[in-house]
Amino acid sequence: MSSIITLTTDFGLYDGYVGAMKGVILGINSNVSIVDLSHEIPPQDIQEAAYLLWTSYRFFPRGTIHVAVVDPGVGTERPAIIVDIGDQRFVGPDNGIFAYIYQDFPGATVTYITNRSYCLPQLSRTFHGRDVFAPVAAHLSRGTKRSEFGPELSTPVRGEVSSALVTRDYIKGQVVHVDRFGNAITNISESQFLRITGGQSFRIEFKDMYVDCINDTYGDVTAGETLAVMGSAGMLEISVNGGNAAHSLGLDRTTPISVVIE
Amino acid sequence: MSSIITLTTDFGLYDGYVGAMKGVILGINSNVSIVDLSHEIPPQDIQEAAYLLWTSYRFFPRGTIHVAVVDPGVGTERPAIIVDIGDQRFVGPDNGIFAYIYQDFPGATVTYITNRSYCLPQLSRTFHGRDVFAPVAAHLSRGTKRSEFGPELSTPVRGEVSSALVTRDYIKGQVVHVDRFGNAITNISESQFLRITGGQSFRIEFKDMYVDCINDTYGDVTAGETLAVMGSAGMLEISVNGGNAAHSLGLDRTTPISVVIE
Amino acid sequence: MSSIITLTTDFGLYDGYVGAMKGVILGINSNVSIVDLSHEIPPQDIQEAAYLLWTSYRFFPRGTIHVAVVDPGVGTERPAIIVDIGDQRFVGPDNGIFAYIYQDFPGATVTYITNRSYCLPQLSRTFHGRDVFAPVAAHLSRGTKRSEFGPELSTPVRGEVSSALVTRDYIKGQVVHVDRFGNAITNISESQFLRITGGQSFRIEFKDMYVDCINDTYGDVTAGETLAVMGSAGMLEISVNGGNAAHSLGLDRTTPISVVIE
Repeated sequence: MSSIITLTTDFGLYDGYVGAMKGVILGINSNVSIVDLSHEIPPQDIQEAAYLLWTSYRFFPRGTIHVAVVDPGVGTERPAIIVDIGDQRFVGPDNGIFAYIYQDFPGATVTYITNRSYCLPQLSRTFHGRDVFAPVAAHLSRGTKRSEFGPELSTPVRGEVSSALVTRDYIKGQVVHVDRFGNAITNISESQFLRITGGQSFRIEFKDMYVDCINDTYGDVTAGETLAVMGSAGMLEISVNGGNAAHSLGLDRTTPISVVIE
Repeated sequence: MSSIITLTTDFGLYDGYVGAMKGVILGINSNVSIVDLSHEIPPQDIQEAAYLLWTSYRFFPRGTIHVAVVDPGVGTERPAIIVDIGDQRFVGPDNGIFAYIYQDFPGATVTYITNRSYCLPQLSRTFHGRDVFAPVAAHLSRGTKRSEFGPELSTPVRGEVSSALVTRDYIKGQVVHVDRFGNAITNISESQFLRITGGQSFRIEFKDMYVDCINDTYGDVTAGETLAVMGSAGMLEISVNGGNAAHSLGLDRTTPISVVIE
Repeated sequence: MSSIITLTTDFGLYDGYVGAMKGVILGINSNVSIVDLSHEIPPQDIQEAAYLLWTSYRFFPRGTIHVAVVDPGVGTERPAIIVDIGDQRFVGPDNGIFAYIYQDFPGATVTYITNRSYCLPQLSRTFHGRDVFAPVAAHLSRGTKRSEFGPELSTPVRGEVSSALVTRDYIKGQVVHVDRFGNAITNISESQFLRITGGQSFRIEFKDMYVDCINDTYGDVTAGETLAVMGSAGMLEISVNGGNAAHSLGLDRTTPISVVIE
């Protein structure tokens, strides 16, 4: 059985917080491979963590356990949970961080972690990443059954998935993530796009600009030119070849983007 | 036997320095798990490395070897050492980087690494992280005895531990670390705090402000409000719920913090 | 057989891109150790990636596979390649990123990856790090023969290696890398330096300054003083003890540096 635990947090890499989580995990299961997804989530930005987790989890093998900790309510009454989608599991706070997972797997089983014997004996109230989520994930990776951790939670916090509005003539979406290269990734999927355009002329509109074709990849246009591609997460993306679209076009995580049939 | 090596350095993640250390370690012991504690220590900031190492090492299992390299004197006469506290070991320069370890384990055994056969054959004078500390840690992890590396060092550089002044009526401490969230962590421990307050009214004073209670966690106050908690390292911490206390209150690593009985 | 895969990219650590690559690798070979060399290469900066790879690869054991992805031409006709130097292999785009490897091993065998069965089934055109290079490296680490991936490529893009001009009386070189500490590392090697200086007096000139001796290490001069050392990559380096030479002396990656016999 594959034993991989991934970590997604807003802890940064400066403090020793992520290291302490790994120490706890390896102390319980020394045979696990720990993979960092991102620790640079802006502090308390649950939505960004939810999005980044979604773009990555599909590329991990069966059995992978994903720990996600962006947890402004740490130590309050918000439950700690395990989300089981069948061949992968997720561990974190019940605050919407698994919004995209629930969307992909509406029938996911959610467990409320109430059994303290799987947490660190000295349970702090400000660092559940280290004291709850890390040890629970490690015990899961050793084969402890989900039901040992606590009862099912029937109404978890579903959280927010940014969805585009799709009609017959247009799609109204928005930028949901700007990556390191300045690519502005939208919430408009390839299938949504194809459904309304299919062979017809279209314009992808944002700010006071537009693009009227989809390119296959960045290098298909000349350097410095703006283009639209279906990016690596399967979503429509506005880019500048060899440049930073977000900076040069003034796009950020809330910028509206529309697709309009001409 | 658990084979974990942690790394704490001021090398950053931009250059390939940390990667080269890992290559050396894995070339000697391919079965080791390498965990990064932090590589973002400010250049030459031995005190910060000493502090971060202290907050993390306790969460690692028996047998873990911690390599810490903030080493302004690299290549000079300062010894390279192994500090053995019984169930964990530390490898690095003898410059005070293990100050907190010596405080926790006054009887720790210190070995002066003089046996060059455990270093890389081509020993540079500017990168002992790669050429001395990495291979020594890897050999330790394979079971090489401490005494093989060199003689005992009876008077290592103890270094500096920032300590609060505790009297019957007050504690005079200071901020010793500001974390990614802007939490200002002090050198006042929970036990010191309880010893002088025990049931009485108190004020925690800093700059021209004060807090007169301890909260359990950030979410116990409204967003934007200043609070004091006993943080995840067991130390008194000034925070702003959902905000950055250091930025908004003007706290940094030297700001004095006092606890006063009213 | 050692199973190490290193990663050098311009993907940064903010997005989940690197994590997705690791998920793909571990899904194919769960027994591999993955080591990050750097993910902070400036976007599209092939030269910097080539240089950093060169300073690190020699410290990895036989059998290591190095994946390097700085790939402005992703999804265009540029080949994906495997470079085999005998005891290590390199996987990445054919765009000059392996320039220093070709210089060290002029007889390296280059394979053009044409067999799509070793790529992810859903092959994006914008993220070959995840869809091509990661799975190819993982299959290589499992023992798949080089010839299975495609035919030999006889004329790969050699790329650019920054070389110093060496005459009998002087060397004209330049800064090729500024590290985290602000050390300005040049393209002048120790052997080039010794060849022309021999026992004679010399000046190392840059901007309107010069240094007339080589120190063994930073701490050999007083704090704040400028010095020249033969750094950990075996190259002449301009440093400031306890300071940042690049900032304080105004050196960057193109600054000319000369060695002149007096």
